[in-house]
Amino acid sequence: MAKITPISGFAEFLPAQQIVMNNVIDLVKSHYERFGFTSIETPVVERTDTLLSKGSDNKEIYALRRLAAAEGEKDEKDLALRFDLTVPTARYVAQHFTNLTFPFKRYQIQPVWRGERPQVGRYRQFTQADIDVIGFEKLSLRFDAEMPAIIYGIFKELAVGNFTIRMNNRKILRGFLNSLGLEKLEDITEATRIVDRMEKVSGDKTKTDLAALGLNESAIEQLLAFFNLSGQTQQLLDTMGTMNVNEEFETGVAELGEVIRNMRLMGVGDDCFCIDPKIARGLDYYTGTIYETVLDDHRDLGTVCAGGRYENLAGQFTNKKLPGVGISIGLTRMVPELMKRGVLKEASRSTPADVLITAQSSEFEDEYIAIGTQMRDAGLKVEVYLDRKKLDKQMKYANKKGFPFVVIAGENEINAGKLLIRNLQDGAEKTLSTAEAITFIKQGTPS
Amino acid sequence: MAKITPISGFAEFLPAQQIVMNNVIDLVKSHYERFGFTSIETPVVERTDTLLSKGSDNKEIYALRRLAAAEGEKDEKDLALRFDLTVPTARYVAQHFTNLTFPFKRYQIQPVWRGERPQVGRYRQFTQADIDVIGFEKLSLRFDAEMPAIIYGIFKELAVGNFTIRMNNRKILRGFLNSLGLEKLEDITEATRIVDRMEKVSGDKTKTDLAALGLNESAIEQLLAFFNLSGQTQQLLDTMGTMNVNEEFETGVAELGEVIRNMRLMGVGDDCFCIDPKIARGLDYYTGTIYETVLDDHRDLGTVCAGGRYENLAGQFTNKKLPGVGISIGLTRMVPELMKRGVLKEASRSTPADVLITAQSSEFEDEYIAIGTQMRDAGLKVEVYLDRKKLDKQMKYANKKGFPFVVIAGENEINAGKLLIRNLQDGAEKTLSTAEAITFIKQGTPS
Repeated sequence: MAKITPISGFAEFLPAQQIVMNNVIDLVKSHYERFGFTSIETPVVERTDTLLSKGSDNKEIYALRRLAAAEGEKDEKDLALRFDLTVPTARYVAQHFTNLTFPFKRYQIQPVWRGERPQVGRYRQFTQADIDVIGFEKLSLRFDAEMPAIIYGIFKELAVGNFTIRMNNRKILRGFLNSLGLEKLEDITEATRIVDRMEKVSGDKTKTDLAALGLNESAIEQLLAFFNLSGQTQQLLDTMGTMNVNEEFETGVAELGEVIRNMRLMGVGDDCFCIDPKIARGLDYYTGTIYETVLDDHRDLGTVCAGGRYENLAGQFTNKKLPGVGISIGLTRMVPELMKRGVLKEASRSTPADVLITAQSSEFEDEYIAIGTQMRDAGLKVEVYLDRKKLDKQMKYANKKGFPFVVIAGENEINAGKLLIRNLQDGAEKTLSTAEAITFIKQGTPS
Repeated sequence: MAKITPISGFAEFLPAQQIVMNNVIDLVKSHYERFGFTSIETPVVERTDTLLSKGSDNKEIYALRRLAAAEGEKDEKDLALRFDLTVPTARYVAQHFTNLTFPFKRYQIQPVWRGERPQVGRYRQFTQADIDVIGFEKLSLRFDAEMPAIIYGIFKELAVGNFTIRMNNRKILRGFLNSLGLEKLEDITEATRIVDRMEKVSGDKTKTDLAALGLNESAIEQLLAFFNLSGQTQQLLDTMGTMNVNEEFETGVAELGEVIRNMRLMGVGDDCFCIDPKIARGLDYYTGTIYETVLDDHRDLGTVCAGGRYENLAGQFTNKKLPGVGISIGLTRMVPELMKRGVLKEASRSTPADVLITAQSSEFEDEYIAIGTQMRDAGLKVEVYLDRKKLDKQMKYANKKGFPFVVIAGENEINAGKLLIRNLQDGAEKTLSTAEAITFIKQGTPS
């Protein structure tokens, strides 16, 4: 007999958990579509050189190998599983450019893979829910406000407690670093990475790293003082607006102010976002607005979604300039963890059905099936108990799977054209005609 | 610049096609859930020895290889992409046995991979929509009727023309072969394979292959005559019921009759199924009822869904006896082909949004955004045009993406608290308040 050894890093859900995950995905989709974003999916596989096209030296990639491959078969090495959804989207937009209408607003909710060595607590397959709007040549700054507006709607409806969308603009950070004497792009990029890591390492380590870039003590103090700026959104914008740092800094502050003004027009409450000058997002990619969202009561989960504005999506594939702004929610880590903590309630049921038609008497099995058919035709989700077991076993089954209602009908009910219907949540029973039972269930089924 | 070379065998859709594919998947899901089946998903990756555990010598499998792997790293070869959903489900049920409630009714709609050499017209990634009910020790024959009942509902609602669910029972075939003198399991299995291929090869080839199994000319003639039996369902059942072949044959006929009787109770119309004694399904796996569905007007697409009853799902993983019955719809081949033929209409739109709020005057951009927010809060899917372009360009954009409605509002409308709303399908225009416009759009949006 083959032994089953679970594979670490590849999550798998029991039915009740899968129902919760599916509900979260449906909720996310509905918010994405509410803003006019359309669904795309790409194959799990890309050419390896496509995945590495951004000059990435990422080797934590799973390449494919045909088991049946002949020795040295050329085909072997050139296909691999994607490690994010950004590169496939860049490839998709460049490849299908003439068939797309810009601004192109797409969402993509699919798994990605990291070809890591197995490690406890590390996922090797995880599902990302990405959303991007991609313009051709230009893209209004107002789109930057749609991202937090969507995130706001999602986390409000998810009801996982307070959350904070931390916002910043790369131009603010770059302008400030510039003003301290950092000029070279690579130094600024490295400084951004150091800032990005700040919250995870000691203050001394940050200072040493910054010093290594050539910043003197006074510059480092100024920078850290700047990062410690805090206050209400408008105060911060006002403070930064009068700091007289340089043009780039001021552009960043103006952009951030305009994005926030638009977020409010889109209904985002001030209690759910803040300006945080030390949000950096490590990737070189971002050029303007950047976002990171944390759940206030679950800060240890880290950033549950993040993104930003970039100048050019697919420069490695096309000469066309494609600026965009996007955000990504990491579902695989967040959802199971919030289930474990009881914040996202695990579904109390492992069946989607509204009702179980029990089979009290084998004599009436045909009738039970016919009742089930009638209820389905009326739009209900119905399971008919088709095995022959004692009624108490069937009730056990109903409770275990969590059906909201059961139908019990013996000789008396069948002859009278009635059903006994029991609400399993509160135990209430009624004797009703099938048509009445359908209405009763429709009223009482949690959606 | 990196060149983009599409990978053959890995389908990818444009947004309008993706909308159709998503709609089909949602429709299939809703029918699966209507019968009480619950969703599961398994990781794309299984251990290679799990995939090969059924004694399969299938080498058309993609194994994974970490690009970063050190020479000879042990981890390299033991993970691979699944080639179907049956083996992962068997592994899932065996692994999570104590946490599942039986009969376990699950559906799984996910991609699978075949590690073939690239070939024109062959998919290497395709999405299967599988449904199975798995019993512990026993499973009522009545479940065999649910499969065609579900398929019937799906293809009726898909509206892709007439279809035929061809039905048979392995016991009928085995009984008949037995009566002709075939006794050894391997000979019967081989005969089943020959029968399964009959429609694809010449009659002479079939005869030669059957003769090679030791069947004499008369036996072959009897078998082919049996396969040519045709007629109405009840006639065929009656004919087979009086053929006096042997006990196994008669059990098969009785089972088939009972399944069909239950299908009718579940609402399946007699015009959509038939008994076909030469349906065999190549797999050793099946032991009772078997099904194959073809679209009558698209027979060249072959079998669009198929399945059957099996005695034991996961014998390679567990001593527990797990009989089941299931069916699988092959979406990746069917859906694009039916789109190409105009049978499944390509969505006339590449956006999910109900309405585009155009920006006639840059002066009122804030108002446009606020109107969009108000409409979204009322449950509409809304895109606000956020770039600055001339109105005719915006209208072009609206037509290209296929928004059902656009809102146009200039100084007069804004000052009067009104919107001009245009139905892009019929060109009709109305001037309405935002609240009225919301009602108007809700009534007119195709769901």
